[in-house]
Amino acid sequence: MKPNRLEAFSDGVFAIIITIMVLEFKIPSGHDLNALHQLLPEILSYILGFILIANYWNNHHHMFQIATQVDGRILWANSHLLFWLSLMPIATTWMGENISYPLPMAIFGILQLACGVAYLVLSRELIYLHGSDSELAKALGASKKELISVAIYLVGVPLAFLDSRIAFTCYFLVAAMWIVPDRRIERRIKISGAGE
Amino acid sequence: MKPNRLEAFSDGVFAIIITIMVLEFKIPSGHDLNALHQLLPEILSYILGFILIANYWNNHHHMFQIATQVDGRILWANSHLLFWLSLMPIATTWMGENISYPLPMAIFGILQLACGVAYLVLSRELIYLHGSDSELAKALGASKKELISVAIYLVGVPLAFLDSRIAFTCYFLVAAMWIVPDRRIERRIKISGAGE
Amino acid sequence: MKPNRLEAFSDGVFAIIITIMVLEFKIPSGHDLNALHQLLPEILSYILGFILIANYWNNHHHMFQIATQVDGRILWANSHLLFWLSLMPIATTWMGENISYPLPMAIFGILQLACGVAYLVLSRELIYLHGSDSELAKALGASKKELISVAIYLVGVPLAFLDSRIAFTCYFLVAAMWIVPDRRIERRIKISGAGE
Amino acid sequence: MKPNRLEAFSDGVFAIIITIMVLEFKIPSGHDLNALHQLLPEILSYILGFILIANYWNNHHHMFQIATQVDGRILWANSHLLFWLSLMPIATTWMGENISYPLPMAIFGILQLACGVAYLVLSRELIYLHGSDSELAKALGASKKELISVAIYLVGVPLAFLDSRIAFTCYFLVAAMWIVPDRRIERRIKISGAGE
Repeated sequence: MKPNRLEAFSDGVFAIIITIMVLEFKIPSGHDLNALHQLLPEILSYILGFILIANYWNNHHHMFQIATQVDGRILWANSHLLFWLSLMPIATTWMGENISYPLPMAIFGILQLACGVAYLVLSRELIYLHGSDSELAKALGASKKELISVAIYLVGVPLAFLDSRIAFTCYFLVAAMWIVPDRRIERRIKISGAGE
Repeated sequence: MKPNRLEAFSDGVFAIIITIMVLEFKIPSGHDLNALHQLLPEILSYILGFILIANYWNNHHHMFQIATQVDGRILWANSHLLFWLSLMPIATTWMGENISYPLPMAIFGILQLACGVAYLVLSRELIYLHGSDSELAKALGASKKELISVAIYLVGVPLAFLDSRIAFTCYFLVAAMWIVPDRRIERRIKISGAGE
Repeated sequence: MKPNRLEAFSDGVFAIIITIMVLEFKIPSGHDLNALHQLLPEILSYILGFILIANYWNNHHHMFQIATQVDGRILWANSHLLFWLSLMPIATTWMGENISYPLPMAIFGILQLACGVAYLVLSRELIYLHGSDSELAKALGASKKELISVAIYLVGVPLAFLDSRIAFTCYFLVAAMWIVPDRRIERRIKISGAGE
Repeated sequence: MKPNRLEAFSDGVFAIIITIMVLEFKIPSGHDLNALHQLLPEILSYILGFILIANYWNNHHHMFQIATQVDGRILWANSHLLFWLSLMPIATTWMGENISYPLPMAIFGILQLACGVAYLVLSRELIYLHGSDSELAKALGASKKELISVAIYLVGVPLAFLDSRIAFTCYFLVAAMWIVPDRRIERRIKISGAGE
């Protein structure tokens, strides 16, 4: 099976998840600067959620760029990832409305861990299908960035109970780290393209 | 007519249906464990709904993988399926908010039956179009799993009036059974691929 | 310019319009038959809206099946059609919640007329671009069905002020008439396919 | 990397943004002309928002029509544009509900400026990637229309504090100016097509 339709379906879900977060915004009830000011924590949360999802889309895009086939297991591993990502809008809004409380902040971090694990499972399934000496396996490699992200989340979640702002800063750190796209795969594409 | 655009449109609808279910969640009103605890029945319902729709998408994907053409009747049979599936989010949320009441639980099961029938009609129309000795007809075969699902729903729906938890368990049983993807078609693709 | 991306974008909008109608449903507040009974006029309106939009999608699909090019004018004519269609969910819900009042019923019919005119403009622009002796021009032909629909709407809208149920029946009549897909174009595709 | 999937994802986001604006409409609470009359400022805002987003889609479509490759920087420049565009629905609704107040009106204009800058950044990144003597660079050219739009917004935003209707008129002026599609690129496509 070719991955085209899996990509199309995932693109649809990514596009909706990233866009419905904005639907959860309550329209400011007033029409002065104060009304806008109250939106601030929600806007910050939205920016964080937007970067994280855009980042998942980018990496998903990179990974399936060099995947040549999918099977039933991949379809479910992909749906599993989309399940956790689909909880992002509600977790983001909950955090945004309760920015100074530990629990919503910690739950957001735990959800990020779940998404991270789901992404890892998907990439391992892809490597398993393509073989451990495939282009894909070489390109995904050691997953250093992924491990650092997990470490930061593991530190950030308990810190949320000390001060929610520390956790929030940790999450932004991860987002910032990922804005630099996945050079590993781009390099790999160039090399394999040059070898053709 | 080629099935590409039917697939694209269906992918869009599937992606939206699966994602808007999460929109129906009410943001927890508090910020402690209690607020999260109250979400539990809704989250369980959401997981059930997500698996069922992901499953329809997977099978739809498998089926159109080997379909080579569509006509006006197929377009409407497909829209008919999407109609019933589009009622999933509201039925799922209604069930989630009234998890211990028989009627929402029974309605959810009846909707599953309607979706199942619509899917059956679509697959029969496709077989009719491709001919009864086509690859597609052979791949879809005897629909054993579909019949078992229908049987479980037929048992589960009346049991909802005895105890809604029994029905809920029945529905999860069906979902679990379908997570194993449609080997029939994958096998068929391999065979026909090998014959090329 | 090829019509691929216009189709993709339109598919997205169609998929969303047809699905968000269901978002406007209020989750039944109770959990007994009475709660379900109150939904009846909204469900009927939803069925009507769903059929009409699915129908526009079908015909749009058929029309662009034989279109070979688009230009800037077509892009805007298409956006113009999507604009009117995007008002369908709100008009459908408003009608559903006020099923026995003349104004929401009449507005729904007027919106259908606007959609119809926008579709006509789009098809004329396509014919203009492809030339009046193109396959597309021959396939679209005399637009008999479109004219009958317009006539029924023109009769139905004022009748809404007499009895809203008459108008509602008129609208369903149009929907029923269109479920039979556009044989003209299917025939044309077969002929031109045979000639290759 | 080919731009196909970036286009697909963007199409999805565009389609959702343009459609969810209509979701923010409150269903009229009454069923007479008065209820409809109260919707007027929101409908005007919706028309403005719809034209502006349709316009961004059209130009995005034109630009990627002649782009032949994308890289990680482009993916983020594109996500950055989509971020600002995703705030359109909430800004449009806020303006529509407070049509006679200066702040929501000014914020809408500032958001347009942010979208415009993000679009400019995206197009410069594309030119940088394709080279300054590429077809794309020649086609995008001097960006005269973009500069006029920016000038009108820069004038309109402060005027909102004098009379919000003046700013609203300025924004409609920009929208009207852009309905004429991007002839530069269409011409370029024809020339390069003729040269093949």
